[in-house]
Amino acid sequence: MISFELSNILILVSTGIGLLWAVYNAYKLNRIKIGTPNQYNNFQDDYQDHHSQLLLEIASHIESGAAAFLAAEYRYIGVVIILLALLIFFIVEPVLGQAWTTVAFLVGALTSIISGFIGMRVATFSNYRCAYCAQTKMTEAFAVAYRAGCVMGFALVSFALLSLTILLGIYINWFIKDYRDFQQLFEAIAGYGLGGSVIALFGRVGGGIYTKAADVGADLVGKVENDFKEDSPNNPATIADNVGDNVGDIAGMGADLFGSFAEATCAALVVCSVSPSFYYHPTTFYYPLLVSAAGILVCFIVSIFAFVGEKESFDQVSNALKFQLILSTLLMLPALYYVAYLTLPERIFGLAPVDRQPIHAWLCTVVGLISGCIIGFVTEYYTSHSYRPVQEVAQACGTGAATNIIYGIALGNLSTIIPVFLLAFTAFISYSLLSMFGVALSALGMLSTLTIGLAIDAYGPVSDNAGGIAEMVGYPQDVRHRTDQLDAAGNCTAAIGKGFAIGSAALVAFSLYGAFITRASNSLNKHPLTDLGVNSPLVFLGLLIGAMIPYWFSAFTLKSVGRAAFEMVEEVRKQLAERPGIRDGREKPDYDRCIAISTKSSLQEMFAPGLLVILVPLALGLFLGPTAVAGLLPGILVSGVCMATSSANSGGAWDNAKKYIEADLCEIDDIIKGKGTDEHKAAVIGDTVGDPLKDTSGPSLNILIKLSAIFSLVFAGVYDKSAWLLCAMTTSSSGCPA
Amino acid sequence: MISFELSNILILVSTGIGLLWAVYNAYKLNRIKIGTPNQYNNFQDDYQDHHSQLLLEIASHIESGAAAFLAAEYRYIGVVIILLALLIFFIVEPVLGQAWTTVAFLVGALTSIISGFIGMRVATFSNYRCAYCAQTKMTEAFAVAYRAGCVMGFALVSFALLSLTILLGIYINWFIKDYRDFQQLFEAIAGYGLGGSVIALFGRVGGGIYTKAADVGADLVGKVENDFKEDSPNNPATIADNVGDNVGDIAGMGADLFGSFAEATCAALVVCSVSPSFYYHPTTFYYPLLVSAAGILVCFIVSIFAFVGEKESFDQVSNALKFQLILSTLLMLPALYYVAYLTLPERIFGLAPVDRQPIHAWLCTVVGLISGCIIGFVTEYYTSHSYRPVQEVAQACGTGAATNIIYGIALGNLSTIIPVFLLAFTAFISYSLLSMFGVALSALGMLSTLTIGLAIDAYGPVSDNAGGIAEMVGYPQDVRHRTDQLDAAGNCTAAIGKGFAIGSAALVAFSLYGAFITRASNSLNKHPLTDLGVNSPLVFLGLLIGAMIPYWFSAFTLKSVGRAAFEMVEEVRKQLAERPGIRDGREKPDYDRCIAISTKSSLQEMFAPGLLVILVPLALGLFLGPTAVAGLLPGILVSGVCMATSSANSGGAWDNAKKYIEADLCEIDDIIKGKGTDEHKAAVIGDTVGDPLKDTSGPSLNILIKLSAIFSLVFAGVYDKSAWLLCAMTTSSSGCPA
Repeated sequence: MISFELSNILILVSTGIGLLWAVYNAYKLNRIKIGTPNQYNNFQDDYQDHHSQLLLEIASHIESGAAAFLAAEYRYIGVVIILLALLIFFIVEPVLGQAWTTVAFLVGALTSIISGFIGMRVATFSNYRCAYCAQTKMTEAFAVAYRAGCVMGFALVSFALLSLTILLGIYINWFIKDYRDFQQLFEAIAGYGLGGSVIALFGRVGGGIYTKAADVGADLVGKVENDFKEDSPNNPATIADNVGDNVGDIAGMGADLFGSFAEATCAALVVCSVSPSFYYHPTTFYYPLLVSAAGILVCFIVSIFAFVGEKESFDQVSNALKFQLILSTLLMLPALYYVAYLTLPERIFGLAPVDRQPIHAWLCTVVGLISGCIIGFVTEYYTSHSYRPVQEVAQACGTGAATNIIYGIALGNLSTIIPVFLLAFTAFISYSLLSMFGVALSALGMLSTLTIGLAIDAYGPVSDNAGGIAEMVGYPQDVRHRTDQLDAAGNCTAAIGKGFAIGSAALVAFSLYGAFITRASNSLNKHPLTDLGVNSPLVFLGLLIGAMIPYWFSAFTLKSVGRAAFEMVEEVRKQLAERPGIRDGREKPDYDRCIAISTKSSLQEMFAPGLLVILVPLALGLFLGPTAVAGLLPGILVSGVCMATSSANSGGAWDNAKKYIEADLCEIDDIIKGKGTDEHKAAVIGDTVGDPLKDTSGPSLNILIKLSAIFSLVFAGVYDKSAWLLCAMTTSSSGCPA
Repeated sequence: MISFELSNILILVSTGIGLLWAVYNAYKLNRIKIGTPNQYNNFQDDYQDHHSQLLLEIASHIESGAAAFLAAEYRYIGVVIILLALLIFFIVEPVLGQAWTTVAFLVGALTSIISGFIGMRVATFSNYRCAYCAQTKMTEAFAVAYRAGCVMGFALVSFALLSLTILLGIYINWFIKDYRDFQQLFEAIAGYGLGGSVIALFGRVGGGIYTKAADVGADLVGKVENDFKEDSPNNPATIADNVGDNVGDIAGMGADLFGSFAEATCAALVVCSVSPSFYYHPTTFYYPLLVSAAGILVCFIVSIFAFVGEKESFDQVSNALKFQLILSTLLMLPALYYVAYLTLPERIFGLAPVDRQPIHAWLCTVVGLISGCIIGFVTEYYTSHSYRPVQEVAQACGTGAATNIIYGIALGNLSTIIPVFLLAFTAFISYSLLSMFGVALSALGMLSTLTIGLAIDAYGPVSDNAGGIAEMVGYPQDVRHRTDQLDAAGNCTAAIGKGFAIGSAALVAFSLYGAFITRASNSLNKHPLTDLGVNSPLVFLGLLIGAMIPYWFSAFTLKSVGRAAFEMVEEVRKQLAERPGIRDGREKPDYDRCIAISTKSSLQEMFAPGLLVILVPLALGLFLGPTAVAGLLPGILVSGVCMATSSANSGGAWDNAKKYIEADLCEIDDIIKGKGTDEHKAAVIGDTVGDPLKDTSGPSLNILIKLSAIFSLVFAGVYDKSAWLLCAMTTSSSGCPA
């Protein structure tokens, strides 16, 4: 067992390495100068001059659009954060005037804001460099995109771990007088997770609405009405679409996974604080942090391999990315073993009916790690057009858009089966080993390769964007071809990342739920959780309403995308009508008006779903007390996981079914059905339906699941004091305000 | 309080009146002779001769097709029933050689088969008569369709109540030696509910696949590829489509609601058998039956009003139908009060923390009755094109099929909010009043107006079919216009009926779940339900897997419809290619080949989803014991209710959005978008996507919810004895087979 000091040093070393590696990669990216000869590009002529100028111009449009959106978004979210902070300060803090939870909340929120901002900056900084390098070699373009991913992944995880460690260090030094204070300390630390999660929610929802409003709007009016090509610079909504990729897919995903990391760590801390064996060895509280620290080191080693060897074909790129995922998983196995033996006491008691050893903690993390990996590959099976399911969906286009959509919905539903079984058994096994602490560990295990996961997730949109930029700049077709290959390889792994994000969200939420129950059972005294039976009426009421919340939430986000896309369509139609020269490139469209519309409508629309997630648990808790919330949370969780998986995979399948047809791979009755056929049109309809499902409502459901749980964990004390309706209905006045 | 004998007499009287009223209506229908002058029709000429002959010919096609399908279906289901009966006989019966549960199961199955058969016969007998009468007056045609509904509703409910009463009477006389035997008796009676439900499942799934395979197939190849009109006799799949309405919408719906009735009664009996106050007054066991008996009498009085007054416009018909629903609800309020005071003891104890009176039982039934009514009207709001939601979906067709579908999905999701809140609070309030018995009573209250509900539900497809037949016979446009009005009025109320079916299924399932818990807590001894906490790992595992089952199930049914529709498309294409004369009516298409294809493929496809519903609870129970099942059932319930509501309402909305456009009501940018526009094509795609959602997977989910619960109730003892995996995983050997 190691000391406090050594734990701190180990964490500092690994976050230091992570941050240095991020800085090094950022430096390498910065050395790519557009339009001047360098090691990547040694030709300099008029052609280059013109294109480089155009490239920089487009890049600056995207950069300023994304920055403007994030700035506006954070201004709006800032108000919510301040209001929530006041709420926490005045009604959640156990003693008025104390601010442990409030400060943790603000630190979490700030870290999340910085994470999202880093992601967006890196992406807008890299995507045009990627397009530029794709002029010469695919290997170079790959390196640019993957370096961007590494900057994002390592900076974000290291920074998050560092800020949490510092916060924890300060709190332990100032807070703890008695080891029993640990429990209260960790409840305060949960504020950190809440702060991160609130930002993530608004980031995901706002960014998701932005990106899909622009995408759907651009598709509807551009491709369907005007026969524009994808990413045509004549389409006024094109730049907004590209901005959307940066703010939705990258900044949103960054904030989301930061939230998972923060919450999993908080949940582990809260649930282990009840085990007496931890009181005797308080340095073991560093165990969850050291798991993440080990993850950074392992991922650092793995990421170096990404830059080894040629990447001149789809297969080479795709294999390199998959190798990253598999190698990091394999190397994590011994690393996790070592961390468990280094940090945990020989006997862990008070968590399971029998005493446990470090090996059991290791097993929990391993179960999580491996089932995360399998969920990723199952997701790939259901969403890649290399396999039967997507091919069937593409074939169903032969009888029109309706059958395409029916098959896609069925595919999404089918794709929930294996992940749900895996998650159910992961939770069951890890709970059997180490109770709720085991579940939190399995979530941490699944997230231990997060750095690589984030790098790959960011890689995809960067190469996608590079393709769009290459098209707009008018680079020759082979450049676009190279970025398309990079993008296609990224698509498969992006699907893996999404499955992974949903799976980890489920485990994190279940362990947060465990933390909520732990807290509600130990420290609530007016409405203690006595009957949690799933047949008790309050729990059942909560379950039923909880199962409905994802439907409500997804209805909000879908309609938001619909409305925002409609405004975009109107704007594009207006521009084309007023200035017909836009259509054939004689006049320049007003990109900024489209960006402004996407920004405005996504900011307007993100509040309703955001408030829903916060207000429903709050209202239920205030009126019916903690027992109803104890039903609500698992209801949201189980229904949300299924809906998120199904939405994401249906959407992914429609997207790839369309690409399958576009790649001339779809044969119906021995005739190849490619671009421009009725089958292709049917596939485009499916893709458009899937867009908001897979990129707005699906991923936001992850956050819904986690946020409702951590919100209730922080607000458990408030529920305890109110339960107004319950008090009015029952004759007994115990626990009810006078 | 009334005696055994008086209770029996009251039930006999009301079922007698119900059956007589059904026979009287059947007699009135039979008096309509096609082609001979009678009170409805006093013209006789060549035109009539020709058309009447054609009418009879088409009617006989539909009749024989439906009969052949039902016969084939029941042959297949018969095998399942026998296998299940053997399973029950050998492993469920408490003492080998006893056959109480097995006999109840077989009686329930037989009653359900007869119910479905009656529904189908009545429908095929009435639909062409309805078309015939629509030649003269709408009032007459309405009377025919509503009489058909009355035959179905009254025959089915009276017959079901009678068979259950007789079974119960025999069992009480032969079984009961001690009043404590009641509990075992009612567990045996649960077999009756199981029998009804198994038939209902296969009937709903088989019929649902049949009707939508024919419908989607006919639409895809007929309307989209060949510009056939709806119900064109030149479309080879038309007759199969009409047969489908009879076997899916009518026979399936009949079996479904019979199942709800049987299960709600069984649940009420099982849960009240634990209350000591019932032991002292065993005649009170007749209370659930008398609630249904009172319902028959009230509905009899109400249904007479349906035949009063002119029905010559849509509004008159629609108001008459709504009046039926509202009047029956209002009259039930005093009737239920009277039944409660007549049957229940003055003090009911052992069910709630304090003693209760009959008025509390009345309140439970009233809460159910009223929330059922509200759910019905909310469903109407979301699916009728008289209101904003559907109009918005229609307007979304302006930007294509994709936005139409996105808005429709959002609408379906939104429409779950109010029903779920109502169900949650209904369950909570009635549980607070009388524990699980209260929940069963609220389900019975909701189902007490079932007779009228069924009559209206059957009315719809009969008038729809009449329209199709009028089209095929070639009656003048005004005939079709009359049946369309009738159909449109029926559509609104059919939506109400669907919302109602889902709502009652949820309450029935929750009370069955309560019965399962009651049984598992009292009579299981190897794996008693000790920790039902929603945070316990086995319960959570069950919940998560349970929430996924509706996705799995709906994927199966959607793909089945897709595959079967595809076979239908192939067949129609083949017929049109081989004999081009079919297209313009010079040759007659081979209707029977299409019927045979629908029959064959729906029978093939119904087994996978059917077995899923039975095997998952069985497998989970066998491997992980009753606690896992105690999580599985609420998981299926809460997720299934939301998905069923959302699927049914999305489908209904797309259907009516299409009709809204077809009725030239949809204005986009001040231009009316009617038939043949791009908007209409987009709406047709939405309608086709919605078809299997609203008529196959949605309604089958009702049965999934109820069947998994009653199956587990009957098989609880088996789960107790096995739990193999759990035994292998845990070190303790308590309760595990040697």
